[in-house]
Formats: sequence, structure tokens, C-alpha cells
Amino acid sequence: MAHVRNKQVILRDYVSGFPKETDMSIVESTLTLKLPEASNEVLLKNLYLSCDPYMQILMTNVEPGSVRLGVAKVLESGHPDYKKGDLIWGLTKLEEYSLVPSTQIQFKIEHTDVPLSYYTGILGMPGMTAYAGFFEVGSPKKGDKVFVSAASGAVGQLVGQFAKLTGCYVVGSAGTKEKVDLLKNKLGFDEAFNYKEEPDLNATLKRYFPEGIDIYFDNVGGKTLDAVLLNMRVHGRIPVCGMISQYNLAQPEGVTNLTNLIYKRVCMQGFVVSDFYHLYPKFLEFLLPHIREGKVVYVEDIAEGLENGPAAFVGLFSGRNVGKQVLLVARE
Amino acid sequence: MAHVRNKQVILRDYVSGFPKETDMSIVESTLTLKLPEASNEVLLKNLYLSCDPYMQILMTNVEPGSVRLGVAKVLESGHPDYKKGDLIWGLTKLEEYSLVPSTQIQFKIEHTDVPLSYYTGILGMPGMTAYAGFFEVGSPKKGDKVFVSAASGAVGQLVGQFAKLTGCYVVGSAGTKEKVDLLKNKLGFDEAFNYKEEPDLNATLKRYFPEGIDIYFDNVGGKTLDAVLLNMRVHGRIPVCGMISQYNLAQPEGVTNLTNLIYKRVCMQGFVVSDFYHLYPKFLEFLLPHIREGKVVYVEDIAEGLENGPAAFVGLFSGRNVGKQVLLVARE
Repeated sequence: MAHVRNKQVILRDYVSGFPKETDMSIVESTLTLKLPEASNEVLLKNLYLSCDPYMQILMTNVEPGSVRLGVAKVLESGHPDYKKGDLIWGLTKLEEYSLVPSTQIQFKIEHTDVPLSYYTGILGMPGMTAYAGFFEVGSPKKGDKVFVSAASGAVGQLVGQFAKLTGCYVVGSAGTKEKVDLLKNKLGFDEAFNYKEEPDLNATLKRYFPEGIDIYFDNVGGKTLDAVLLNMRVHGRIPVCGMISQYNLAQPEGVTNLTNLIYKRVCMQGFVVSDFYHLYPKFLEFLLPHIREGKVVYVEDIAEGLENGPAAFVGLFSGRNVGKQVLLVARE
Repeated sequence: MAHVRNKQVILRDYVSGFPKETDMSIVESTLTLKLPEASNEVLLKNLYLSCDPYMQILMTNVEPGSVRLGVAKVLESGHPDYKKGDLIWGLTKLEEYSLVPSTQIQFKIEHTDVPLSYYTGILGMPGMTAYAGFFEVGSPKKGDKVFVSAASGAVGQLVGQFAKLTGCYVVGSAGTKEKVDLLKNKLGFDEAFNYKEEPDLNATLKRYFPEGIDIYFDNVGGKTLDAVLLNMRVHGRIPVCGMISQYNLAQPEGVTNLTNLIYKRVCMQGFVVSDFYHLYPKFLEFLLPHIREGKVVYVEDIAEGLENGPAAFVGLFSGRNVGKQVLLVARE
């Protein structure tokens, strides 16, 4: 019976405020590569693990665990849907090998002519989030004026490209010059700006959207949302995907311009990607050809080695990553 | 040619902050009861004038006029749709007689077996607002848990009754004991509370809604909305009708709990009644039988005489009125 050394990142406790590297430790144990008797669990070798801001919410509120979306290879399976050698993506853990209930597997990976890491991003949860939030919640029409915050992130960079494919005008905000250049030069945004260099966001938005905003894809909440509310057009839509600027504040910033929802008949709709996973086959059918033809691109920031997991995750909250933050644990 | 004395309330200037009686003056002039040559305007004798909070927005931002919804009798008409003696409701002015463009008339009044004043309230703009906001925006289902703020007001009292007709559980908030009694004893709310006596609105809502709120019909915004956001159920709806608590603040209160929109998939939808006036015939067909059978009631607070118009309007912002504030200008 084979045994392996299994490196794991564990959390010392519930995290409060911004997560820090010192909240996490790396431990090593021995794992037997065999399923327990009559188990219908699945034993996984983790290949690529995703670093997503929403994990902080789990860390703060739910459990001091290290549950994480990832791409993995099945080593042993107690469930008939999965067999040894299958590639899957789903909920696994921040470690090299994981034993997970089969219900945590989201989808089997059928298309391997694209980078496997894509299933933590463009072809995984963030991709579906952008797709569902923009097309299903945002109801875009050709010619719509679209604004995306955290626009170079895992979700934002796709929202912008989906908006261009739909014939919209799209502007993105990000927090460094490098990201702004990426948005304009690589990701096809019509315009982009560094929000840290704009002292008056309302004036900035008026400059980029003299006629107002039809769709604001909100990834950040707070002050940006407040300025956007002053610039929405009648019947505008705000898919609320995330509010990363607020997650780690002891006291969230107040949003003061909500009365604008009324006269402008604006709809703010919170959504969660898991409500839309039934659309995954349709999503792949839409997106895979665009990826293969190079019409949709995806910027990843890949850290290598489990021991770099804590830093990669913590970096999300200061915007250190450029593009989707992925952790490469093993190549195969 | 007949002449009449026409008493008018005029505004001295744009209003800022809470409107005060001293912002308004009463003047008197002579009016000739004859239309100008080739005019397609309509000369109205105003009977009942409505006092609505949203007028403050017009006073602050749009014009220092005294435009007002009301019920009136047509004295002379330059438009073929209206003839002498017709009763109408629409936009008129805070005065005894008004000459208005025919386009300002909303609807001709066909049903006069109900009080005429109802066309400023339950059968007019506030009634349509409650109907459209609750049924069209709120998408209620039997068994839904509904919360209404400003619940004894022109709109709120109807939302509560519509909720009961739909088989919902409904709780209202208001600002005096008298109004709370009205909600429970006359208007059929399941529960009601005085928000001024609740130091912790979040705890109050948890008490009345242990399973959470499906529909929050928002008339007030601010702190109440913020507490509601902590208590919404998954897939809840917030039709945003008004935010009276915020209209007169130099700096609006910040709403800090918007991240709850995301995980609870809540939809906040601002709306404006004028988008729904095509439903007016359907609305009358639904509501008139309920009124005639006494299954829906309507509480009005009727001030008499044009000279009491300023006080009646100003009173809205301190919640002095009990029920829909109407100004009786003339009985016929």
C-alpha cells in the first residue's frame, strides 16, 4: 500500500480582519493512498488550487479550515461517476492530497486542449460567475455602457471581454498602472483607470460615462459603488458579485446614494454562482471556441508550490496579484 | 364673462432641507373663467389636492412651483377628451383654480360611488404605487414574510392589505402609538411596532421575523433599510419606493450592510409609478370591488381649506399626519 507525504496549509484559528500569512501554518503528515472500506469518497491529487477573495468569508465565519476550489486528478474513487485518472474541478483543500466527499466535485474535466489551470479560473467558478452575472443578471444589450470594478481580476477581466463581445462600451477600474495597461492593451477594454489616482470618483465616472452607466458589475462595493449610484442611467442594472473593499473592515463604509435607485429605476441584484451551475454546459459551448480562437484571453498569476499558498492568498487583499491568482501544486 | 378670486399657495424660492411653512405664502388673484383663444388647455376647479413626500424633491431640485396631484372638476376644456363637468385626476397646482395643459390630466374619473378624495390616494398615484411596487416589483407568493416601513402612510397601508389578500404575513413600522394601533386594529397587519421605541432595529426585526423577510417594501431608507438587510431571506426582494428619512438630510445616512445582498441573492429594485400607469384599468378592476365590499379600507387625514395646505404638507416630514394626507379645497 502506497504512502505519500502530504503537505497542508492549515489555519491557526478563525481569521479576523485582513488575513495574514501568520494566520496559516504548513504541516506535513503521511497519507495512505487507499480509500477507507466502503467509502464513496474520492482521493485526489491536487494540481492547481484557486485563491479567491470569498474564501476570507469562510475563514472568518464558517470554519478555520482551508477549503479551496481546485483542479485535481482522481487517485482512488469510491463513487461510480469518477475513476482513477479522471481530471475534475471542485472543492478540495489547500494541501497536496485530499480525501473529499464525491458531492464536492463540481465537474469532470472533458476538454484538455486548454491549460488545466483554466478550470480554476476562466473555465471554472470565476468564469461562470462572470458569465452568469453579466449575461443572466446584467441582461446586456448591444450599445450598453458597462463599468467593471476590480476589472483585471479573475472575474472582471472576463466581464469586460464578454461586454465587448456583446457590442458594449466598457470601462474598468483597477489599482495599479500595470493592471490599467493590461485592461487597455491586452483585455480590450475601451478605457481603464487607476482608482487610487482618482480623488473624485464621481467626476471620473462622469468623464468616462457622460451619458451614464447601464450596467455596473460590482466587485468592490463601498466608495466605488457610491460614486456609481450617482452615474447610473434609467433602468440600469447592478449585478452585485462581490464587495472586496468591505470584507475586512471592522465597520463597513456607508453607501449614501441609494435614493438614486428610485428615480433611475435601478436594479441591484446580488447573486451567487452556484445558482447558475446548470448553465455550465452552455457556458463551455459558448466560451471554448472563443478561447481556442484567441478571441477571449485570460491573465493568470501563478504561484508555484504549496508553501507559497498563504502568501498568494494574502496578496489578494492588497491587490498584489495581476489577473487570476492560481497556486500550482503539481503539474500532473 | 365670469371671474373668480383664486387663492394660491406659492413657494418663495427653492426649498432646502425640511420644508417649513414660512417657505410658502398664500396670495390671491382674479381669474377669468374662460380659456385663451385656440387653447387646448383645461381649466380646472380643484377639489382635493394630494400632499406627497416626493413633492419635496421637486421643490428642491426642479422648480419653486407648487405642482400637485389632485382631483378636479373641468370648468372649460380646449381638448376633445375632456368636457365641462368631467371629474379628473392629474397634475394640478396648490390653488383653487388651475389652467393646465391637457397632458397633465392622468385619468378621467368614471366611478363616483366611492369618495372622490380616494383618487388622490387609494385610487390614485399612491394606490398605483402600492399595487405596482408590491405585485409587479415584489412578486409576492402566499406565505411570504413581508415588512413595510411608513406602514400607515398613503402607500404603506395598502401594501399591508395587499399582502394580507395574497396570504402573506405582514409587519409594519410607524412612528406613533396611534399609527401602530391603526395598523393592527384597522388595517389588518399581523404585527406592528413604533420604530422610535426600538433601540435596536436588528433585534426588533429578528423578533418579528425569526425566519427572515421575503419582501421589504422600502418607504424610508436609511437605518431601517440597513437593519432589514441583516434580516433578508435568500432570494428576497426589496422594492424601493421611497426613502423619506433621507430626503432632507444634508448628508444621507450610510447604509453599511449591502454585502448581505450577495449571499442572500437579494434584489433591490427602485421603481417609479409612472412606468406602470398602463395597468390602471386592471388595478381599478382589482381594487374597486374590494373597496365596495369593505375588504380594503383607507385611512385619510383630510385638512380643509387651501390656507391649511402649507401646514399639511410640512407635517408629512415630521409624521404628523395619520394616513394619507389630503387637502380639501372644495367639495364640488
